[in-house]
Amino acid sequence: MSVIKPSLPKGTRDFSPIEMVKRNFIYDTIKTVFRKYGYAEIQTPSFENLSTLTGKYGDEGDKLIFKILNSGDLIDQKLINQFSELANALNEENWTVKKDDDKETVTYVFKGKKEDFFTSIFGFGEFDKSSALYKKSNKELINRVSEKALRYDLTVPFARYVVMHQHEITLPFKRFQVQPVWRADRPQKGRYREFYQCDVDVVGSESLLNEAEFILIYNEALSKLGLKDFTIKINNRKILSGIAEIIGKPDLIIDMTVAIDKLDKIGLDGVSKELLERGFTEQDLEKLRPVILLEGFNEEKLASLKEVLAESETGLKGIEEIEQVFDYVESLIAYGLPLTAKLELDITLARGLNYYTGCIFEVKTNEVAMGSIGGGGRYDDLTGMFGLKGLTGVGVSFGADRIYDVLEELNLFPASAEVGTKVLISNFDETAEKYALPIVQQLRNAGISAELYPSSAKLKKQMAYADAKNIPYVILIGGDEMASGELTLKDMQSGEQKKLTVLGILELLK
Amino acid sequence: MSVIKPSLPKGTRDFSPIEMVKRNFIYDTIKTVFRKYGYAEIQTPSFENLSTLTGKYGDEGDKLIFKILNSGDLIDQKLINQFSELANALNEENWTVKKDDDKETVTYVFKGKKEDFFTSIFGFGEFDKSSALYKKSNKELINRVSEKALRYDLTVPFARYVVMHQHEITLPFKRFQVQPVWRADRPQKGRYREFYQCDVDVVGSESLLNEAEFILIYNEALSKLGLKDFTIKINNRKILSGIAEIIGKPDLIIDMTVAIDKLDKIGLDGVSKELLERGFTEQDLEKLRPVILLEGFNEEKLASLKEVLAESETGLKGIEEIEQVFDYVESLIAYGLPLTAKLELDITLARGLNYYTGCIFEVKTNEVAMGSIGGGGRYDDLTGMFGLKGLTGVGVSFGADRIYDVLEELNLFPASAEVGTKVLISNFDETAEKYALPIVQQLRNAGISAELYPSSAKLKKQMAYADAKNIPYVILIGGDEMASGELTLKDMQSGEQKKLTVLGILELLK
Repeated sequence: MSVIKPSLPKGTRDFSPIEMVKRNFIYDTIKTVFRKYGYAEIQTPSFENLSTLTGKYGDEGDKLIFKILNSGDLIDQKLINQFSELANALNEENWTVKKDDDKETVTYVFKGKKEDFFTSIFGFGEFDKSSALYKKSNKELINRVSEKALRYDLTVPFARYVVMHQHEITLPFKRFQVQPVWRADRPQKGRYREFYQCDVDVVGSESLLNEAEFILIYNEALSKLGLKDFTIKINNRKILSGIAEIIGKPDLIIDMTVAIDKLDKIGLDGVSKELLERGFTEQDLEKLRPVILLEGFNEEKLASLKEVLAESETGLKGIEEIEQVFDYVESLIAYGLPLTAKLELDITLARGLNYYTGCIFEVKTNEVAMGSIGGGGRYDDLTGMFGLKGLTGVGVSFGADRIYDVLEELNLFPASAEVGTKVLISNFDETAEKYALPIVQQLRNAGISAELYPSSAKLKKQMAYADAKNIPYVILIGGDEMASGELTLKDMQSGEQKKLTVLGILELLK
Repeated sequence: MSVIKPSLPKGTRDFSPIEMVKRNFIYDTIKTVFRKYGYAEIQTPSFENLSTLTGKYGDEGDKLIFKILNSGDLIDQKLINQFSELANALNEENWTVKKDDDKETVTYVFKGKKEDFFTSIFGFGEFDKSSALYKKSNKELINRVSEKALRYDLTVPFARYVVMHQHEITLPFKRFQVQPVWRADRPQKGRYREFYQCDVDVVGSESLLNEAEFILIYNEALSKLGLKDFTIKINNRKILSGIAEIIGKPDLIIDMTVAIDKLDKIGLDGVSKELLERGFTEQDLEKLRPVILLEGFNEEKLASLKEVLAESETGLKGIEEIEQVFDYVESLIAYGLPLTAKLELDITLARGLNYYTGCIFEVKTNEVAMGSIGGGGRYDDLTGMFGLKGLTGVGVSFGADRIYDVLEELNLFPASAEVGTKVLISNFDETAEKYALPIVQQLRNAGISAELYPSSAKLKKQMAYADAKNIPYVILIGGDEMASGELTLKDMQSGEQKKLTVLGILELLK
């Protein structure tokens, strides 16, 4: 067997013990909060039928789906037939076909440039990749060799789950899902080809209490992770519809929101320019500007919007929904802890509009420069793509990788999140090892993570091992210790050493 | 968008909330034990470079690796060239090639049966799938369209990890890994195409203390899962080598162990027959039989083996290792809990011999008929395949899916493992909802998983929801309750109802 220098596929990562402890701290914290709000975990398979996934993420998304090659041989009769159909359909000018008299034999004559021979067989002329035929053929061939694909997100598999299990689940169905997803995106800083999503959704309940509870879920989870200053932005798709309506351009709603969404990046002038390009007039802009630039407390914004949207039933409904969510939040926290999060109505918040139909959310930390660390919203027809109509849902998601980077930058991972083994017993020689064996097991029986160094290596090496593993305590057992029954417990951080009996150590480390 | 009736790829599974709680119970229990013994979690990516995986699992294994299609177009110039090389190499009898005078144009003439035309182009004659050329071409084509594959196990990625991170890790490196693996096996009862492996290994330590601790890890984890009667079988590859040696057939060791391994299934007569077929003589069998049929306590077996293997250095070394492991186990548990597991020296235990070099393990439950629920052993050269020689390791693995089935059959999942939400507050009307909002949050602030039914549906429906979700308590809030401040707490199992203040409920549910 030839030896290969091992490497990782681009865009993927190994997670070391320390990274795993930190990642688990994030997942465990978030999951605990999900459960407290009555959400239950489900898992779906890593790969789905290709037909379940394609057509759900737009053309650009479809291209990023990782497809799995059918098992068995790649070349089979079907594939060959596919090629031959393509070839027959094309480039006939290079070919002469003559049936012989016996009708069993045929003569194909190709006359042309040598390099055209095979391309003509494959039917792609000069590899015009933009040609419709090339695209179609390529798509068909991929479908011939691949029937399965890695999931691209957790939302479509969830919709599939709800439809497939509709007779087992009880509505409202509150589920969370924390699993990896895969995208064949160009890897770059902070963007990976395999990453975890943490989604929490409820389907089958129209109540805005759900929206309010997602605000509290964000608040509680992010506070527990140690964040002190973060903003939950909220908007409502119906408000955006209302605005497009009162300007008299309801059809341009997507253009409008795509432009407004960029306010942070390109400023008011940029947005105005883009709106004009997208079919709005100067008069429209005059109506729009005060809405875009809306400032003040949420109550003030809502009051202004009510005036602006007085003529739009949809718009007013959106305002009412936001007010109801705010009311719910206030009632929920009446006797409890106040919100750490800033809750901000942001009319420029858009998020994939083709999808959401009601409230939408986005979460940002104000302590570090970083994109959104969470988002979501209400969708009125998630399961329609699989034939189950009229099921409304709302859900949010946590960006675990970004949250990891934020906590790292703010140094927020608790020290306890870095401790695996709590105590190492050193191993001087065979006698000391024999003495130590029942002790290491006593520590474990008391629930303390403990190791006995597995050989009598040099003490320096054993200490280096404890250091490398961040083990906070080392027990030294030498001749004196065995004679007196008082072991030396070394605190690796302070360097301090104490003499203690096994029971004393158990007491101290518990 | 056309609506597709959704389905799952064969061999894959969705996990419902109840299944997830049970699965988490297994994983959490096992992981907690791993950590207590000083093992730390790592994770590796779901897919690896194809070159990392191929050639590691034998020809049969290689076929079961799920390959990922390269992103982008399937058909590219490279692929076409590959086809054209193949075509040029073959079936020349059907073809006439004539260069024209201008040297730019070429004439290819094919004369033959129509159905031979394309197969001749592709170079596979009449699709003789057993032909070397077909196999080679197919392999090369697969490599052209796929460079990545889903991991097949956790062992090879672990070896890759150790080699890639050799300068960051401190030896001995103790890691565990609980992640899914994928195999394109024919699905059948209990065999899935995606399933979890729970592996725990240490590399860089020769000490047999590690072997002893794996016995304790099995013992503790399986006991904590509720198993009461299970056997950890142990053997040593060196003992098997020694036996082959004293018979004078060291080269037939694999044949010998493959045959002996079947004792359970085909009995002594079957084993004898197979041994004769595999090149052993009647005289060999006479020497072998007493070893195969070895009975009694472990000490008795070891004593007999010492006599039989007196002339084999390797064999005696194997016995010594087993004895050392037994000694370690005894010392470890000297002041602690006794072993629940039966520890049994089993000379017929073989397990993939090409791989293991020292002690080997296998675990079986005696309470249900089921294959092994765990196994492992020592390997002396795991990382050699990636160029890092001389690193010894030992590890074991838990079969989580089988353990799940065992616990299910024995009804061993604790009731607590089925509770998600602990209390549901019913929702009668808007007034009651308003009254309930701060209460549901107070419950959550106290760490109690609580839900307020999100709309004022019929009480029957709300109760059915609590039933379906296995929620053990429901709080009923009506006019009386709001007037008195004493809420009705219903125990869903007994049906019993109590009047309690919020504080009383908090007290009771905590």
